[in-house]
Amino acid sequence: MARYIEKLTPVSEALRLLKERVSPIEEWFDAPVWEANGMVLARDVHAPIDWPPRDRSAYDGYAVRSVDTPGRLKLVGSATIGSIPAIRLGPGEAAYVTTGGFLPEGADAVVPEENASVEGGHVIIDQRVEPGSYVDKRGSLVSKGQLVAKRGTVLTVLDIAGLVESAITEVPVYRRVKIAIVSTGNELIYPGEPAWTAREILSGKVVATTGAVLAQYLQDYVPWAELVHEALLPDDLEAVSWTVERLLPHADIILVTGGTGPSTIDLFYRLRDKLGGELVFRGLKVVGGKPTSAYIVDGKPVIGLSGYPISALHGFIRLVYPLLIHMGNVRRPAPPLPIVWAVLASRVEPKRPRPIKVRLRVENGRIVAEPLPWKYQKSSAGIGLVMADGLALTGEEPLEPGSLVPVLLYRAPAGWRPPIP
Amino acid sequence: MARYIEKLTPVSEALRLLKERVSPIEEWFDAPVWEANGMVLARDVHAPIDWPPRDRSAYDGYAVRSVDTPGRLKLVGSATIGSIPAIRLGPGEAAYVTTGGFLPEGADAVVPEENASVEGGHVIIDQRVEPGSYVDKRGSLVSKGQLVAKRGTVLTVLDIAGLVESAITEVPVYRRVKIAIVSTGNELIYPGEPAWTAREILSGKVVATTGAVLAQYLQDYVPWAELVHEALLPDDLEAVSWTVERLLPHADIILVTGGTGPSTIDLFYRLRDKLGGELVFRGLKVVGGKPTSAYIVDGKPVIGLSGYPISALHGFIRLVYPLLIHMGNVRRPAPPLPIVWAVLASRVEPKRPRPIKVRLRVENGRIVAEPLPWKYQKSSAGIGLVMADGLALTGEEPLEPGSLVPVLLYRAPAGWRPPIP
Repeated sequence: MARYIEKLTPVSEALRLLKERVSPIEEWFDAPVWEANGMVLARDVHAPIDWPPRDRSAYDGYAVRSVDTPGRLKLVGSATIGSIPAIRLGPGEAAYVTTGGFLPEGADAVVPEENASVEGGHVIIDQRVEPGSYVDKRGSLVSKGQLVAKRGTVLTVLDIAGLVESAITEVPVYRRVKIAIVSTGNELIYPGEPAWTAREILSGKVVATTGAVLAQYLQDYVPWAELVHEALLPDDLEAVSWTVERLLPHADIILVTGGTGPSTIDLFYRLRDKLGGELVFRGLKVVGGKPTSAYIVDGKPVIGLSGYPISALHGFIRLVYPLLIHMGNVRRPAPPLPIVWAVLASRVEPKRPRPIKVRLRVENGRIVAEPLPWKYQKSSAGIGLVMADGLALTGEEPLEPGSLVPVLLYRAPAGWRPPIP
Repeated sequence: MARYIEKLTPVSEALRLLKERVSPIEEWFDAPVWEANGMVLARDVHAPIDWPPRDRSAYDGYAVRSVDTPGRLKLVGSATIGSIPAIRLGPGEAAYVTTGGFLPEGADAVVPEENASVEGGHVIIDQRVEPGSYVDKRGSLVSKGQLVAKRGTVLTVLDIAGLVESAITEVPVYRRVKIAIVSTGNELIYPGEPAWTAREILSGKVVATTGAVLAQYLQDYVPWAELVHEALLPDDLEAVSWTVERLLPHADIILVTGGTGPSTIDLFYRLRDKLGGELVFRGLKVVGGKPTSAYIVDGKPVIGLSGYPISALHGFIRLVYPLLIHMGNVRRPAPPLPIVWAVLASRVEPKRPRPIKVRLRVENGRIVAEPLPWKYQKSSAGIGLVMADGLALTGEEPLEPGSLVPVLLYRAPAGWRPPIP
């Protein structure tokens, strides 16, 4: 009796135990910047050259020698973006330039097109122009050797655009963290033709969706990791241990979902006896956290998560995500998890940390979180996920109406529009 | 002179003009739920059956007839999740059940495993059990015909998990909005071997990254759209119009990037003369918005955006994203755009709506946005994107230190951890 009710481990303790035992990825290599989207910088990046590498025009107009202004200057050619100008300005000469183009030698200022007029082959400039006017000077943005990005930064597509624009075309990055997901459950099926699938569900089968939820959150919020394998297996110790053994050489971390009830939780525990390794913790002190457990085999974490999508996601957000930050050497994660503060609309008594399905609305510019009725809060009440917009993430203490609660958003609150002025 | 300085159109006006002229997608079809990730519901979805479809056990334990409790009951079998139990309980009989499994006929309550003991082939239950105890009754979560999801909802992976769990295996969805991106610029190159690419950049070439930025934001935040074509072209009116003509039959909207200076902005305007159609607006009243323009050909918007990544993204967030919400029939977008309120650390005078590159940090639980120095604010200062963490989106009015400003986050603020208790 009560064989599974042991001391549950608080999340912070479970995470500390895991981090102590799991090493961050050490392998790194130089990658073309445009292939490093979502990867983690393994070293600080310093500028290899001054940027811009030459004086550039900051406007469409006429490159001039400022000493020649005001004046009537001879138009000797043009210097557009895309190449180093072949022309050189002598006294009394000007050249057409476009924004971002390198200045011809001799030029030290640009006169915007709208401040000049053209007559025949000449440009008439009425006013005196200061040296450096409308010019981006060599090295004005970045000096050679300057630190431009720090180790531990997850590169976004905007970072890539900025680095490559500045002629930084190769960066040192860690290899991605490799993840395998094993979904277990005798009742699980692959979905197929809709009517057939509905009949199977009515006869008690369950479509395997928990692995898909985890895979989506990995794809969206953990770009420094890659899902290398996904497996679907029965609640069979031999089959699961056989599969995990075969995945261990190829993954840095294995997530095993399933075990929603005490009888199946045992399967994960017995798996440890088969595989060996060190039990790290058994049961996480969160609602729905009894199946959440971990051991280490060959230095790699094998983490058991609930078979219910919401409970597995909860374990993922609280435990696996911070562990992946650690394993990936991440100091500045990107994209940020979509967690916002919301105002709680009614009292909740979570007792243990738990995900509460909430509907969201906007009132007076603030996001208000209304918990769904109690019956939809069960892990097994999946339809509650459809009715809700996000998951409020609580601690142990009761929360009064009006308190602020963090909410993992999975869609925009009703009535929400981005607050862009 | 000043041929391009016309009356710029405010964002709200530009958006109104576009919405009036562009029809939302009408085509819809029934899709298997698991293939509808990111798609938009075309009709309200009602439950096809009661859920659960039969009484289910809410716990691992023993299914009993409550009238038999307390008592010593004969264990006649087990009913685990995954099938409809073949057994039927008679008087004085019990069956082992697991969480989520259907109750055998005759049973009306479940006794948790830890509240019972087993002796030989019998289960001993000491206390009286109420009918319905630890049972999820048929229809207790959803009644047949009940509205479970509304038209205009973008389906997330959690919605899919919830729907399919409830035997809703097919949903009516709009087809995705088809987008083509055409990047133009004589200076543009494809990136290749890093050293070669760096040399090309130093000679004035520019790696085409703006299209990649737009593609990433489409992928991350507009799952109801699909990128059907990407093209890279010189600033050549014939080449661009030839390509746009060929894309028009296959896309619902075409984004043309390029034209960062007045001379190349003209290319987009002349494109309209080639293709015909109605000019909607010419120049958006935001900083960097002069190249942002739109016309309608064959009922389809062709939208010109800046060639600079940050300005193109700004036009995308302000104009294209809301237009795609309209075109996609979206009422509840998912995932939400990562826009948060931050406290501005220093004064800004934007004059027109603009994206301000900001570094973010957390102070006393609030996100503080520190604008990068002025020289990094130029659209052409791409390295500023690497130094920043997000883009503050301003209106026209000056903003004092301490004011709240919306920030499009592209990475987590320094010192940030999700506020999970």
